[in-house]
Amino acid sequence: MKVFGVTGLPGSGKSIISRIAKKEGIYTISMGDVIREEAERRNITTGKAAVILRKKYGNNVVASRCVTKIKNHSKNRHNKRATVKKMYNSHTNHNKHPPKKYKKIEQDIYLIEGIRSPYEVAYFKKQFNNFKVIAIHSSPNERFNRLKRRKRNDDSPDYNKFVERDQRELNFGIGKVIALADYMLINEGPIPNFKNNVRALITNEIKPKRKNINRKRKSKNKNKSKQNRKYQKGKKQYNKHNNRKNNNKQNRR
Amino acid sequence: MKVFGVTGLPGSGKSIISRIAKKEGIYTISMGDVIREEAERRNITTGKAAVILRKKYGNNVVASRCVTKIKNHSKNRHNKRATVKKMYNSHTNHNKHPPKKYKKIEQDIYLIEGIRSPYEVAYFKKQFNNFKVIAIHSSPNERFNRLKRRKRNDDSPDYNKFVERDQRELNFGIGKVIALADYMLINEGPIPNFKNNVRALITNEIKPKRKNINRKRKSKNKNKSKQNRKYQKGKKQYNKHNNRKNNNKQNRR
Repeated sequence: MKVFGVTGLPGSGKSIISRIAKKEGIYTISMGDVIREEAERRNITTGKAAVILRKKYGNNVVASRCVTKIKNHSKNRHNKRATVKKMYNSHTNHNKHPPKKYKKIEQDIYLIEGIRSPYEVAYFKKQFNNFKVIAIHSSPNERFNRLKRRKRNDDSPDYNKFVERDQRELNFGIGKVIALADYMLINEGPIPNFKNNVRALITNEIKPKRKNINRKRKSKNKNKSKQNRKYQKGKKQYNKHNNRKNNNKQNRR
Repeated sequence: MKVFGVTGLPGSGKSIISRIAKKEGIYTISMGDVIREEAERRNITTGKAAVILRKKYGNNVVASRCVTKIKNHSKNRHNKRATVKKMYNSHTNHNKHPPKKYKKIEQDIYLIEGIRSPYEVAYFKKQFNNFKVIAIHSSPNERFNRLKRRKRNDDSPDYNKFVERDQRELNFGIGKVIALADYMLINEGPIPNFKNNVRALITNEIKPKRKNINRKRKSKNKNKSKQNRKYQKGKKQYNKHNNRKNNNKQNRR
């Protein structure tokens, strides 16, 4: 089980990371969403919900709710995995490719967006062995310009309010979290560049390289099982097909 | 006048930036050096010197000393510049290139290494209009490994002491300074990569692009002065030389 936390000041691009992670089949939780859910349940504003939650259950309440969510999901994943494995095995008898569902549920990787205080980091590190923090940095000017454009509920086109909001988050201790982050991403120039960096981080650090491992195993077990021999045949046919293609190309020349 | 501050936790690579900046002719001050100087003058340890300085002159004493140093240097620079300009003019009468000295003194750019607290940043911003902060980030693991290797006076091979030192700096508020930095550099992989990034930052953001301006002027004044015609001749000869080389290559084939 691998758990990553994402931190960054408002407008740095935290939501971009979680959007891409979701697409890659990583289960992501937003700490802000946990508060928003509670606010909806009680029919109060998010600010009030945060205060009430903390008063009732302590400072780590949001973090602990995230932990229970992740642990539940991981359990369900294992159950689902078992059932899907059966499906998969029955599939393999018919020599079919594993279904997409299987691949998605297989990953035991989680992302928690919106970590703000070093206490939360300490709590997550206690709960998850290999907890790592990803920080995103954008310069204040860049963030202010972005927030002016996006206009969410709590975004303001007033620079003083922007500085105030930054200070509120910094007083939670987000600066310490950013300074001690395990990975740092810079989101300064065009957004596509940043997205590429995020994807590179996901493929290199967050997701294990399963494909390569499988390939190595296959090459070691060469010519040992019927299934592999079949695979080899298939490969040869594939090569033949390729050769035919190449021949065609040469003939055309 | 342009002033930049460099911040980063121990072992992140602050001294690399100031070393490169010095080579590029930028006047750099280390806030740690200011304390070390005072300690040498009084013949006490740096820790004691820092405490005494702060008690006597207030929290911003180191920052204010840096400011006076920079302002003095800037004044001297202007005086020196005037004298060197005379030199330069006398040189130009003899049709010679401006001396290297002139180029070095010409830059009114300053770098302050080792900013630790947001109060210092606020102080510098008051003193210098366009003050910008450059932060360097390395993951804690990477920094710890570096400090183990470097073994300065205050570096320790003990992980707990390393964490303690980080916490001391974070309690000064260095996390806030890093989170609100205008430029962020990542120093994670091999050092030459980081050095290249530093050089790119210096040429793109810190130093104005004087060379390009000069070139444009030259191209506008084409064929107007004797000097330029000489330059053109030189260029042609260079091309001829190149052509000869190419011809030789073709002959060999």
